[in-house]
Amino acid sequence: MSASELNQAVSALCLKSKQAAGRLALSTVGQRTELLRKMAESIVAAKDEILKANAEDCLQAQKSGINGPILKRLKIDDKTFQTMIRRINAAADLPDPVGKRLEDFTNAEGLQVSKISAPLGVVAMIYESRPNVTTDCAAACIRSGNAVILRGGSESICTNRVIVSALRSAFDGIDENCIQLFDFSGHEAVDELLKMTDFVDLLIPRGGRALIEAVEKKSRIPIMRHYDGICHQYIAADADAKMAVEVVVNSKCQRFEVCNSLETVLIDRSCATRILPGLFAAFSKAGVTVRGCPVCREIVPEIEVADESDWATEYLDAIISIRVVCGIEEAAAHIAKYGSGHTDGIITSSDKLADEFILRVDSGSIMINSSTRLSGGEAYNMGAVVGISTGKLHARGPVGPNELTTYKWVARGEGHLRK
Amino acid sequence: MSASELNQAVSALCLKSKQAAGRLALSTVGQRTELLRKMAESIVAAKDEILKANAEDCLQAQKSGINGPILKRLKIDDKTFQTMIRRINAAADLPDPVGKRLEDFTNAEGLQVSKISAPLGVVAMIYESRPNVTTDCAAACIRSGNAVILRGGSESICTNRVIVSALRSAFDGIDENCIQLFDFSGHEAVDELLKMTDFVDLLIPRGGRALIEAVEKKSRIPIMRHYDGICHQYIAADADAKMAVEVVVNSKCQRFEVCNSLETVLIDRSCATRILPGLFAAFSKAGVTVRGCPVCREIVPEIEVADESDWATEYLDAIISIRVVCGIEEAAAHIAKYGSGHTDGIITSSDKLADEFILRVDSGSIMINSSTRLSGGEAYNMGAVVGISTGKLHARGPVGPNELTTYKWVARGEGHLRK
Repeated sequence: MSASELNQAVSALCLKSKQAAGRLALSTVGQRTELLRKMAESIVAAKDEILKANAEDCLQAQKSGINGPILKRLKIDDKTFQTMIRRINAAADLPDPVGKRLEDFTNAEGLQVSKISAPLGVVAMIYESRPNVTTDCAAACIRSGNAVILRGGSESICTNRVIVSALRSAFDGIDENCIQLFDFSGHEAVDELLKMTDFVDLLIPRGGRALIEAVEKKSRIPIMRHYDGICHQYIAADADAKMAVEVVVNSKCQRFEVCNSLETVLIDRSCATRILPGLFAAFSKAGVTVRGCPVCREIVPEIEVADESDWATEYLDAIISIRVVCGIEEAAAHIAKYGSGHTDGIITSSDKLADEFILRVDSGSIMINSSTRLSGGEAYNMGAVVGISTGKLHARGPVGPNELTTYKWVARGEGHLRK
Repeated sequence: MSASELNQAVSALCLKSKQAAGRLALSTVGQRTELLRKMAESIVAAKDEILKANAEDCLQAQKSGINGPILKRLKIDDKTFQTMIRRINAAADLPDPVGKRLEDFTNAEGLQVSKISAPLGVVAMIYESRPNVTTDCAAACIRSGNAVILRGGSESICTNRVIVSALRSAFDGIDENCIQLFDFSGHEAVDELLKMTDFVDLLIPRGGRALIEAVEKKSRIPIMRHYDGICHQYIAADADAKMAVEVVVNSKCQRFEVCNSLETVLIDRSCATRILPGLFAAFSKAGVTVRGCPVCREIVPEIEVADESDWATEYLDAIISIRVVCGIEEAAAHIAKYGSGHTDGIITSSDKLADEFILRVDSGSIMINSSTRLSGGEAYNMGAVVGISTGKLHARGPVGPNELTTYKWVARGEGHLRK
């Protein structure tokens, strides 16, 4: 395909999405809920076909030498399949985020003003191998009245074709182009997609910093960014030792390779002697390497040396860094300097200190006496999410159907003029 | 100043803003309200000094051959001065947008989850000559707990120095660096500002499409965009003729050069013969040139020819284009194709048709039986605004203090772990 043919083909696909979004905007809440139920049913009905296509993708991946973690994410096992279904149904159960009156008043001139939530229009997802992202995103977009263009990783193309075909078969009376697979191969095609400012309202690149930065450079379409998760827990002076150890160890060890797992513990100087030895023992037992500041190592000499680069590292592995700080101000300053604004917590028995932490720490999720692993769409009752935003504009934290809406101001007059 | 010195100087200024924002986040609602009152008082007290500096700027501008409209916008007359004061006080009167519980529930695991509005952090404004933007933006940012970096046009530098100095003198116990003038000359300095991703949370370029596109290309900081206002009024089949003519003429003629003034009228075929002659007469009387489609010109032969480019033009002048359409679907399709998503209206006596228009038209403001000139922060009870967003992400339409906030998720547990 020549460059101009490719441009035309991608434009045509995106225009179809835009038109489908316009039609979906005219559907009722009930129709969208019904559609989501049917989407779940279609996926159930296509189970054998989906698993067969997925086995083919996995075989191809192995042949081309794709390694452990990617292959693991690519494979749909029974648990993954059930989660896919559950999340589509969860989106069907969610209250509709569209058409809500966010504000409603009559102004001094007698104009009746309201602010009403509305779909964004067309959302384009660029993501990697996991095929459950396909159903999650489709569900979140349909719940919020948006059309979606799905560009998954090339490794999962067979699986995604079958999934998207099943999802589209659920459309009856609503334009099936609300869900489209971006089935062009090669980076040139993606580059064309990035130019579609007239048709695409939001781009969501999911696949690490390099992908996001490349998209930022090439596209003028608004982007939702999901950068690093350098998450902290601050153990305050008054922290309960047992709770501190349990919460901190769970924050790190429940799963290593995810963005809301813990990377750095900040422990107050006045409780370090009391809590650090037990914490070190618990981490050692869990097979986690502990690196610490000089003060840490005075208290527990077995702790390895942490250098400046440790504070700025998202390990995503069985390593943790620990630093002794003097009070909440120093803890907050450390988080401001090295954190990524994803999820940060405090262990304290003081409500006042917790409230101060909320004001001092500028992060998407603040965990009080709870594991960082609990931050996310499921805990926040969001159903299917399309990703987690580490930016502050538009959406922050998990991005579910509610975050995929914008709003319109509506002013109703009776011939009102401006004087 | 060398490039690296400039980088250091700009970094130092931005870091001061970031630190000031952190301190402002710890202030109370009452302190911020009090601060806004004092800012208004300081401006009143500095009136003579401000007008003197402004006279100097105007003189310099005239000497360098600056023409009518820019000079007019640069000059602070008594009305402008009173508006500046009124808007700072209006911001003081507004309910505080920070710390609101947007959501609040206990989840299935007993974690108490809330979503709390919070300041963005540091807002950088890049704008042109109007010095009242300086006070408007400072007021909107302080009301929302944000620090602001103000980079006004070079023509207004004397005025802005005096205004910012007066505003900063109001700070007592809160860091005055919450308001900083970006007092570096030249584009190199602005380019450095555009790189400050670690310190600046939101960039607002106000000054036309070329400026916004340049900023988009050079910066990875999130941007609020204020593009064109190609606004429409659709006169539906059942429209009252008198109201239609009054609202449409007011939408166009109350002021020509602003973004929410009308550019195109879409008139339904079934009422065109009834309404168009009177509408044409009213426009002619107001000195507005009317261009129309062939069907228009059959009904009123004096109407000039409109070509394709007319539908896509923001005249900002005494010219209007009129097109006859068949029904609401065609009207909405025209708006989708040629509009800019700023403000679009319908004249109808049917609530049902108005509701359909709201669903079909994807714009920031939808006016029902009211002038497009009424869309804006004042009508929407927003007080001081920093601009109007034609984008759909984060803020849409007028951007006031409420729109300059983000949120934090806060989860309170009692040692909650992830299983």
